[in-house]
Amino acid sequence: MNLKEKVRVIADFPEPGISFKDITTLLKDGQAFHYAIDELAAHFKNQEIDVVIGPEARGFVVGTPVAYALRAGFVPVRKPGKLPAEVLQYQYSLEYGKDALEIHKDAITPGAKVLIVDDLLATGGTTQAVINMVNSLGGEIVGLAFLIELEFLEGRKLLSDYNIFSLIKY
Amino acid sequence: MNLKEKVRVIADFPEPGISFKDITTLLKDGQAFHYAIDELAAHFKNQEIDVVIGPEARGFVVGTPVAYALRAGFVPVRKPGKLPAEVLQYQYSLEYGKDALEIHKDAITPGAKVLIVDDLLATGGTTQAVINMVNSLGGEIVGLAFLIELEFLEGRKLLSDYNIFSLIKY
Repeated sequence: MNLKEKVRVIADFPEPGISFKDITTLLKDGQAFHYAIDELAAHFKNQEIDVVIGPEARGFVVGTPVAYALRAGFVPVRKPGKLPAEVLQYQYSLEYGKDALEIHKDAITPGAKVLIVDDLLATGGTTQAVINMVNSLGGEIVGLAFLIELEFLEGRKLLSDYNIFSLIKY
Repeated sequence: MNLKEKVRVIADFPEPGISFKDITTLLKDGQAFHYAIDELAAHFKNQEIDVVIGPEARGFVVGTPVAYALRAGFVPVRKPGKLPAEVLQYQYSLEYGKDALEIHKDAITPGAKVLIVDDLLATGGTTQAVINMVNSLGGEIVGLAFLIELEFLEGRKLLSDYNIFSLIKY
């Protein structure tokens, strides 16, 4: 299946000059959505993944069905103030400023095999933040999976220590 | 499986007096998470669901794996400004003020069979907002599925026109 043709490209969103990759057209197509999740899960199915970790909010959309398909657990990484128990907070720089993410301190058992999933690999800044949080909690990162990779932003270089798999490339 | 014992109850979050039902302890348990999604999907598996709709952000966590399990598409309902194409916006009242949600106008084909999924049924206000949006776009609402139902808030009364299924009750 050609997944790329299911993605809608929208010019100048959320800011002028940005060509936004809208995955909602892929998600609403049951066949394309199921195929995409199966492809992502299949790549890691023999790795005995314990938990999939996805950052809010589009990381939830791709990460939770991958976790379900792998019979793994799911751990959300959220914006500050959303998680109710004791959290580890991580501050990081973005293309357009600073941001912070939180994870529950008890979300990962030390030594757990972790797959990090997000909708999009761009510069890799958000993923690097999630990697640092997982490492702090003692998880073993088995791989990084993305629905879309923007190759011209070279996030793969930043994350070159890891096994990266992406389905749709620009 | 006793799913209720997988939920962590946290007092006084996000505000004093509120007993927050934290589902992250259920989600991170691969077996419990898989079982919960299977139970939700099984209840609607003969209904020929075309799309599952879930509101940001915890509705994504439960809704997308249910969509995957049903081989249906997924349509996100989001906070204003997040969806890149033409949207329908709906404003509604909450327990603690007002809020607005958006859905892509082309997200639902008229006549499509829709299952609305969220993590929690409380007063039903958010779900009623999503129902109104789906009805505006011509979708046929087949049912409403929730991981948790707070029965004492009587959301089921507000939504009594619909087939409601919830897994864990308080």
